[in-house]
Amino acid sequence: MVESIKRLPGDKAYRVLESGPTILVSTRNKAGRTDLMTVGFHMVVSHEGVLAAVISPGDFSQRSLAETGECVIGVPGVDLAEKVVDIGNCSGYDVDKFERFGLTAGDAEHVAAPLVNECLANVECTVLDDSMVRDYGGLVLLHAEQVWVNPRRPEHRTFHHNGDGTFNADGEFLDLRERMVLWKEYQT
Amino acid sequence: MVESIKRLPGDKAYRVLESGPTILVSTRNKAGRTDLMTVGFHMVVSHEGVLAAVISPGDFSQRSLAETGECVIGVPGVDLAEKVVDIGNCSGYDVDKFERFGLTAGDAEHVAAPLVNECLANVECTVLDDSMVRDYGGLVLLHAEQVWVNPRRPEHRTFHHNGDGTFNADGEFLDLRERMVLWKEYQT
Repeated sequence: MVESIKRLPGDKAYRVLESGPTILVSTRNKAGRTDLMTVGFHMVVSHEGVLAAVISPGDFSQRSLAETGECVIGVPGVDLAEKVVDIGNCSGYDVDKFERFGLTAGDAEHVAAPLVNECLANVECTVLDDSMVRDYGGLVLLHAEQVWVNPRRPEHRTFHHNGDGTFNADGEFLDLRERMVLWKEYQT
Repeated sequence: MVESIKRLPGDKAYRVLESGPTILVSTRNKAGRTDLMTVGFHMVVSHEGVLAAVISPGDFSQRSLAETGECVIGVPGVDLAEKVVDIGNCSGYDVDKFERFGLTAGDAEHVAAPLVNECLANVECTVLDDSMVRDYGGLVLLHAEQVWVNPRRPEHRTFHHNGDGTFNADGEFLDLRERMVLWKEYQT
């Protein structure tokens, strides 16, 4: 990716994911085929880079993830909202999603799955624990290996799914850092 | 709770939680002592009411949750943002948080843990699977038994933690329901 991109350690993933943005999950299977899916069911599990996401069994992306143990989480800005929804409403079995939606794949450092260059941030991930995949519909624990943040995108607002096809973009900014007396270490 | 409150089945919890709002978790231990904690690490796991949250071991709330297997997730509006942050920066061992922060406890139907009357929504939860609590810092799976939505709060915006003590309230509303061709069943 280009020079202005900031590289952060994986344990900083909470800085780009805790707020619950709608995300893209990017994979590349062993045959080299890339895919994208849209995910609203995800969380940060720890400040040490443990994440969780639901990647539904049977999806093309889930097969690639199971095969390689690797993915990239992309955090799109609201300028990509329509594309992100459309990505979640077609299948990687039928469509090359990077090509169809005019997105470009960047090289990650720790995983073969591609970065999504048009995203505000990308998190390189490896599968940490897949023991819950079967019982909980694709719930997988991931480890964030590295975070990339692109400060040069014109649109900085992420967007959040209300569960019904409506979304809210980020609005009013609240700085309550001074009140977070027990959590200062996570502000740097 | 008052008459205008809407009651939804637990499997609708994604409608109030998928967007990643900062939440309160309310508990009542067997001795009758209530507590509140603030949580940013949570997710929806399924459209059947499975949720996940990190409730840190050692916290007063975690002990109550472990003892009773019950909690309520409250979704506060941004009018409560300062209180919600302060609730996350003191301990239930030292403070009666409902009293300290001027919040009122309502009666739930399925659990002994109290609703937080000042929240936009409350989700009554029972512990579904605590097998990951030890390995993943308090990661617990919950089952949503019932959802309460209060349409009469003057402030409807939720708020989202950026991981560093700053937050964004809900902003621009996007209606992309027509593009969600594969997910119509979740729009009603």
